[in-house]
Amino acid sequence: MTHLRFALIGAGRIGQVHARTIAAHPAATLTLVCDPVVAAAESVAGTYGARACTDAADVFAAEDVDAVVIGSPTPLHVEHILAAVSAGKPALCEKPVAMQLADAEELQRRLAELDDVPVMLGFNRRFDPSFARARALVEEGAIGPLEQLTIISRDPAAPPKAYLAQSGGIFKDMTIHDFDTARFFLGDVAEVSATGQHLDPELADSGDYDGAVIVLRSASGAAATIINSRHCATGYDQRLEAFGPQGAILADNQRPTTLQVSTREASDAKAPYLDFFLERYADAYRDELTAFIDALTQGHPVSPTIADGVEALRIAEAAGESARTGATVRL
Amino acid sequence: MTHLRFALIGAGRIGQVHARTIAAHPAATLTLVCDPVVAAAESVAGTYGARACTDAADVFAAEDVDAVVIGSPTPLHVEHILAAVSAGKPALCEKPVAMQLADAEELQRRLAELDDVPVMLGFNRRFDPSFARARALVEEGAIGPLEQLTIISRDPAAPPKAYLAQSGGIFKDMTIHDFDTARFFLGDVAEVSATGQHLDPELADSGDYDGAVIVLRSASGAAATIINSRHCATGYDQRLEAFGPQGAILADNQRPTTLQVSTREASDAKAPYLDFFLERYADAYRDELTAFIDALTQGHPVSPTIADGVEALRIAEAAGESARTGATVRL
Amino acid sequence: MTHLRFALIGAGRIGQVHARTIAAHPAATLTLVCDPVVAAAESVAGTYGARACTDAADVFAAEDVDAVVIGSPTPLHVEHILAAVSAGKPALCEKPVAMQLADAEELQRRLAELDDVPVMLGFNRRFDPSFARARALVEEGAIGPLEQLTIISRDPAAPPKAYLAQSGGIFKDMTIHDFDTARFFLGDVAEVSATGQHLDPELADSGDYDGAVIVLRSASGAAATIINSRHCATGYDQRLEAFGPQGAILADNQRPTTLQVSTREASDAKAPYLDFFLERYADAYRDELTAFIDALTQGHPVSPTIADGVEALRIAEAAGESARTGATVRL
Amino acid sequence: MTHLRFALIGAGRIGQVHARTIAAHPAATLTLVCDPVVAAAESVAGTYGARACTDAADVFAAEDVDAVVIGSPTPLHVEHILAAVSAGKPALCEKPVAMQLADAEELQRRLAELDDVPVMLGFNRRFDPSFARARALVEEGAIGPLEQLTIISRDPAAPPKAYLAQSGGIFKDMTIHDFDTARFFLGDVAEVSATGQHLDPELADSGDYDGAVIVLRSASGAAATIINSRHCATGYDQRLEAFGPQGAILADNQRPTTLQVSTREASDAKAPYLDFFLERYADAYRDELTAFIDALTQGHPVSPTIADGVEALRIAEAAGESARTGATVRL
Repeated sequence: MTHLRFALIGAGRIGQVHARTIAAHPAATLTLVCDPVVAAAESVAGTYGARACTDAADVFAAEDVDAVVIGSPTPLHVEHILAAVSAGKPALCEKPVAMQLADAEELQRRLAELDDVPVMLGFNRRFDPSFARARALVEEGAIGPLEQLTIISRDPAAPPKAYLAQSGGIFKDMTIHDFDTARFFLGDVAEVSATGQHLDPELADSGDYDGAVIVLRSASGAAATIINSRHCATGYDQRLEAFGPQGAILADNQRPTTLQVSTREASDAKAPYLDFFLERYADAYRDELTAFIDALTQGHPVSPTIADGVEALRIAEAAGESARTGATVRL
Repeated sequence: MTHLRFALIGAGRIGQVHARTIAAHPAATLTLVCDPVVAAAESVAGTYGARACTDAADVFAAEDVDAVVIGSPTPLHVEHILAAVSAGKPALCEKPVAMQLADAEELQRRLAELDDVPVMLGFNRRFDPSFARARALVEEGAIGPLEQLTIISRDPAAPPKAYLAQSGGIFKDMTIHDFDTARFFLGDVAEVSATGQHLDPELADSGDYDGAVIVLRSASGAAATIINSRHCATGYDQRLEAFGPQGAILADNQRPTTLQVSTREASDAKAPYLDFFLERYADAYRDELTAFIDALTQGHPVSPTIADGVEALRIAEAAGESARTGATVRL
Repeated sequence: MTHLRFALIGAGRIGQVHARTIAAHPAATLTLVCDPVVAAAESVAGTYGARACTDAADVFAAEDVDAVVIGSPTPLHVEHILAAVSAGKPALCEKPVAMQLADAEELQRRLAELDDVPVMLGFNRRFDPSFARARALVEEGAIGPLEQLTIISRDPAAPPKAYLAQSGGIFKDMTIHDFDTARFFLGDVAEVSATGQHLDPELADSGDYDGAVIVLRSASGAAATIINSRHCATGYDQRLEAFGPQGAILADNQRPTTLQVSTREASDAKAPYLDFFLERYADAYRDELTAFIDALTQGHPVSPTIADGVEALRIAEAAGESARTGATVRL
Repeated sequence: MTHLRFALIGAGRIGQVHARTIAAHPAATLTLVCDPVVAAAESVAGTYGARACTDAADVFAAEDVDAVVIGSPTPLHVEHILAAVSAGKPALCEKPVAMQLADAEELQRRLAELDDVPVMLGFNRRFDPSFARARALVEEGAIGPLEQLTIISRDPAAPPKAYLAQSGGIFKDMTIHDFDTARFFLGDVAEVSATGQHLDPELADSGDYDGAVIVLRSASGAAATIINSRHCATGYDQRLEAFGPQGAILADNQRPTTLQVSTREASDAKAPYLDFFLERYADAYRDELTAFIDALTQGHPVSPTIADGVEALRIAEAAGESARTGATVRL
């Protein structure tokens, strides 16, 4: 099997990214698009010559579907993953696994009882070429044992309050990516200490933090510092720096061009950052799909897994507790 | 007509870039690939679900071909352009138009006698997002009237001597792109002064310069300086800087990642440059094709044209003369 | 009084910096150098045409001394400050005020009972041209209200273990500067949460942390994150970034030259950072002295003051407690 | 002789730089300042505790003067150099040696007949720490044999027309520094090709170019490209890049701080360049004086010499001829 036929569940913003990525991939074809909103399903399907459906059951029953990308709303992730696995169809599911750690753990238990069908979790940032290369350099020992990881992660603008109200909170909705990045570099996390901020007056009554600083510590003593904000005037601020005894590796922000403009006021001014995740992580979505396809066609285990999703959620819940109590939480 | 069926003539290195670009374009389909080497034609055609042929006449006769991309060897460009136009098929032809200015001018005269079918010349760098944005900023007056343009253009490594022997010389083979870039920013060129260098001992007997500095002057008095080398240890060095009374705009090199590595020896060391033109100008090839398709489907004139190819050749021949005689050549 | 005659107490490493800075200042003359090691006092005094003495009492009694720079060991700071003030001589004293917060507070109380003679504390980083300009831009509202401050502060190499043993610990010895920088930008600190690390195996038994991450929160809700290490392969790593709703301001590291070297392995590699504080903060020491002289000659209050030293010590003690207990400490 | 007593001839702008540099140098004392404008001489002398005089003859006769810095108007350089040498006093003279090549050559002849007293020419840029380090790296072979040198050299703003009228023209007044820099890197120059520009409408009738591009070729075939402008909105634009088969070394511009500001409009915008030569080359003037003093006290030959000044003038005259005729001039 060297060419895979994909179904896509969920034709929303992130689903459309996956549809385009699948269609452009030399080893993949998009054959089926499922969304309860029939117009959404048909629009995406039409663009890429696929069929449309509105019932996810049709996806799992389809004979011309080798693998499934799950981009449905988070509350449906567990159901869709279990159905895909039961149907013997490998799945790539968007993060987070679930809203509650308990639900993700329950999924993990149930998957252990089923046949071993690959389920990969869409922590796309692991596949960002710069982050991936930084991590490879760290693994190769370029800076010695990793001692301090600094992640700056700021969204260009806060989502609507209605979204925030059902987002699960900043740690599960936004920082979850950074928790996974920290685990990608540091391995398992032993301690979490979090500070939540209310930066944006407009969001004062949102019931959620819109800024945060979180310090994680691994069993080996390495520290990861994550700095989050729901807004950033210059765009989608996504940087990290790995530091060890032999040096440091910075993954800088990305711009649409390489221009540097010098005027009476400033020199070497670059363009604002790429904005938003669809542009910033376009290459990451492509490389993520390639990694999924390569794992399936070459028989390697997929990575990251549901277990990685569970661990990120565990850190997120601990961060929430730490931000409330002011105490470091040990995992 | 909002979706175009393309034929590709020439399945070599640059032809494969065009094939991939056409296949990935939402408004284009690749239907026919032509190459005298049947295996080459079939390999590229097979990858993208197109038919293969070995005789260019089949391309011009094909009913399911709306437009042609010409990536044949330079000596065949004139013949293929004329055949495409005679068949009423718009063409996008790789640079240079011809090896000799006289041949390009002759083509221009013959095209003037034929029906008006769009012919676009593949000066891909005009479509590089950074160069294009720099030029747009200059046109908008961001730095005032352009006074000095500096183009650094160095290949990562010299081609084989056999290639050099039939390349037409550095000015027609390599600098031709930079001459077009200079015209893209400055408009028509009034004077040329060139210095040729023999840098690489290995190429001492190649009969060609492997380094050059060329100074162009426009009618308005603006100067463009082009610095070329056939080798560059750090990769494909492709920069330009536009300078005017209000400021300067630099288009910097591109790297595969945004990493900056700091060690005991150095700080903020970036990766070597993207290497070679297929990677460095991948976005430019994509945007060039889009410009061609947009012009055809929206009825705009194509740009750059054969006339631009003629002018670039005229400068190249003048540069050759200046390098030989040491005198500035007026056009 | 527009020209000041200075005495220097302490002819060690930092004292020599002050001696040179005073000698080079157009409004200052170095007249007396005091150090219990007579050779040290005479060496520094000789270089700048000053007299030497070994007893600090001679400094306070000298008629040709208008002001005193105190660079004696920390345990003597309180005594020397009180003696200078009692003698009516303004003093610029190196940080920290004292090893224990209680001693610094006691000094503050005793100074309140004496005549008002200016005492400035040598938090030199406030006078670093880049940090000072960043803070001025923040004050001017360039980025809106400050929301997140990130300070990276790493020494090139750990001092000898013997030094560490009597240093008062990383928070009082090293982070104390960063605490003051945080206060310089954020104002008073309401909460402290600290994590200590043992990074260097050689220092495992030093009884002190050699790495730390500290999160401070101001009354207004702004957060400052400080990342410390006792070692940094690339040199003295001294950066800060101020972030607000309208933008961000980064103060980058400094190098001895502006060179960027590109080779087969890397592009735009800069030199390692300036190393160590004598070079990195040379301009800061100069501007600090100027601020002291300007305040005295123009009758302005000096800044920073002993109160600033007390507050930095208060944060340092809170950080120590937080690192031990894992709990956020409120001030 | 390890401490030198200096006289300064000329208390103008550049003279004041030398006065300050001498006064701050640990191995130098300023004892005498000479300027026909008595107030100017006394003002500078007073600042640094030196005597003042108005007749240069007093300088050469003074017993407490070991060496002379000549910052008089260019037409007096030859006379002052000869008088210094005749008096046995080593001299550091500002560039250019003379307005006309013939006069400089005549000086060279007359010096050859006198006793050997060191005369150093003030090509200060050779002592810029970044340029000097770049050249040292080239000498060490860091990029292999130098192939292409690119010098961008733009003044922040044109001097008054009255100055331009008697400046000797852009090549002798401004580019002369760049010619020396080219020789510093490439050695002797074999060919010159120059293009002059009239960029600034205000200077159209100044009788001089206010922009230029000059290409030099060394005997070894290396090329140096110099790009000049009398104006630059962003400040004093002083860059160079050395390129060879193993890599490239860029010496970038300098700013007053390391700040990088990111807003909605731009990211990582740096401050404008240091402006003007007094600030930009402050370290160069210091290191130039040190090199002069070191040569005298250690008995080394001084460098650069009058011969270097002659060669730079020779290139300047050739550039003027090339710009007029459009032909390459061989030296």
